[in-house]
Amino acid sequence: MKIQDVARKANVGVGTVSRVINNNGYVSEKTREKVERAIRELQYTPNELARNLYHNKTNTVAVIVPDISNPFYASLVNEIEMNLRRKGYKTMLCNTVGEQTNEELYLSMLQRNMVDGILTASHSLDSKKYAGITGPVVSFDTAPLSDRIPVITVDHREGGRMAARLLLESGCKHIVQFHDNMFDKFPFFERHQEFEKTVREAGAEYVSYIMERDCFTEDFYGRIVDNWFDKYPQTDGVFGTDMLAAFCLKKALSKGMHVPDDLKIVSYDGTLLANMVYPTLTCIRQPVPEIAKAGVEQLMKIIKDGKADRKVIKLPVTIERGMTTMTER
Amino acid sequence: MKIQDVARKANVGVGTVSRVINNNGYVSEKTREKVERAIRELQYTPNELARNLYHNKTNTVAVIVPDISNPFYASLVNEIEMNLRRKGYKTMLCNTVGEQTNEELYLSMLQRNMVDGILTASHSLDSKKYAGITGPVVSFDTAPLSDRIPVITVDHREGGRMAARLLLESGCKHIVQFHDNMFDKFPFFERHQEFEKTVREAGAEYVSYIMERDCFTEDFYGRIVDNWFDKYPQTDGVFGTDMLAAFCLKKALSKGMHVPDDLKIVSYDGTLLANMVYPTLTCIRQPVPEIAKAGVEQLMKIIKDGKADRKVIKLPVTIERGMTTMTER
Repeated sequence: MKIQDVARKANVGVGTVSRVINNNGYVSEKTREKVERAIRELQYTPNELARNLYHNKTNTVAVIVPDISNPFYASLVNEIEMNLRRKGYKTMLCNTVGEQTNEELYLSMLQRNMVDGILTASHSLDSKKYAGITGPVVSFDTAPLSDRIPVITVDHREGGRMAARLLLESGCKHIVQFHDNMFDKFPFFERHQEFEKTVREAGAEYVSYIMERDCFTEDFYGRIVDNWFDKYPQTDGVFGTDMLAAFCLKKALSKGMHVPDDLKIVSYDGTLLANMVYPTLTCIRQPVPEIAKAGVEQLMKIIKDGKADRKVIKLPVTIERGMTTMTER
Repeated sequence: MKIQDVARKANVGVGTVSRVINNNGYVSEKTREKVERAIRELQYTPNELARNLYHNKTNTVAVIVPDISNPFYASLVNEIEMNLRRKGYKTMLCNTVGEQTNEELYLSMLQRNMVDGILTASHSLDSKKYAGITGPVVSFDTAPLSDRIPVITVDHREGGRMAARLLLESGCKHIVQFHDNMFDKFPFFERHQEFEKTVREAGAEYVSYIMERDCFTEDFYGRIVDNWFDKYPQTDGVFGTDMLAAFCLKKALSKGMHVPDDLKIVSYDGTLLANMVYPTLTCIRQPVPEIAKAGVEQLMKIIKDGKADRKVIKLPVTIERGMTTMTER
């Protein structure tokens, strides 16, 4: 049953039927009665699309992440969906992994009122594309996109410093950092910088292993770790995201190394992986529930008031002590 | 800019503007010119909602899962999103964990043409609610919902048998199965039955540890495993989903047990967890990419032709040999 059927039956336009359903705009009493009779006779349930057309709202937010099968993004999306749901919004999910066109599709959906807002954690975005966007957008940990788009991030600088100190306190002399190369304008680049600075200032040997591309698969991480063990066998301290760190742990154990005696590991993110491997990873935890909540709150502010509270919201990271570092020397 | 502005400017109804934009239904030449002039003058971009209203399509599919932060569902949603995207559909994501109302919301969205179809892997669903649903729905591994709704599942019976044999071949005499109690009408219940049958027939001691509720959090799993180690210290073989199995491994290692010498483990699902822990888990792998593909294909068939190919599509599971079982005795 479509709104068109009602319109045909009542011998009026679709717009008139919508005005009656939405109680919005002028309809003569006689026409209203005709439409209501047709609705009753056809047992028509108002189509949400027709309703949305009038209110120009979809109550839907697009959430763009690089790869939802990565545990960090899975937990972020989980929290975002929950927060949006509580505010009466539905979540449209979009993976960008390897496909930049996706992002453009969603930006155009925002322009065409297909979604009421966008929450983006995409790594592949082109900030030029966002320059002309006037609709509600909030980004997670991206490079600045435009004056209108607030960024939710964490104190990566402090996170990098914490990680370096944990390894240094554990007595590491040869430290490797797995380093995202491409994104020097992204807030998380500060973690790499501060980690390197802290390690160098302490006089330890520092190597950064630069990842050539933005990829989150097991195979990719596995190869990187194999490579690193071949290239830097003297390494005694490692810093990388949870999945990389877990692969390093696995590799070290499979080579008969003892962790943390022979190798210390600090991971970044604090997803479920850090707590599921053994020995459990000492990690710098990003507060995913708070990140999601702040992002949704700012988006709601923009939808409601036209602007966010601040351009950048920076949340604290915390140390989660696992078994891959030494407590004291 | 709204379609209403165009209608007002052209002094016609919203329905007329939509007919012009969508090139759908009769509009006189004179009226068409008026509308097109108004569109040009207002620089109006057609609202997707208006377009959808006419085509009665949203190109959106709702995907309902219990908990996307669980690696199995994260990878399932990842594959579903990719398959839907290739077919020109967007993914609306819905977590049901603890909230049955959600599912009803999405069923009502289907009735109200807010989504073109539903893919559901929900555990909390009430099949009565689906009885009257005439829109396109495909389920993953659920109890039968209605004659109209096909179920995509795997050969759980074979999976249970494979797992039992792997443990028996490894020499296990005291075997525990972590068992989902609530869902005896679900296809995966067959895995529990067949596992138990195979173990008992071989004369090994069998214990099932029944999980009292449907929950996927680390804390919940951690507590279950702690409990089990206290209650059944003689256990030498374990069968459970990846996350439970990983927690068992962690617990055993933390107690100084050797795996697989002191404890053999077979996990079910084959998510990234099975390959990230060390020793890696021997697992029964569900073919997530194929499951997602089959679900999307059947949904497209229903959307297009009104019916699916079959009521049940059962895909094969495979053994992935890790390091938590013995190869030969």
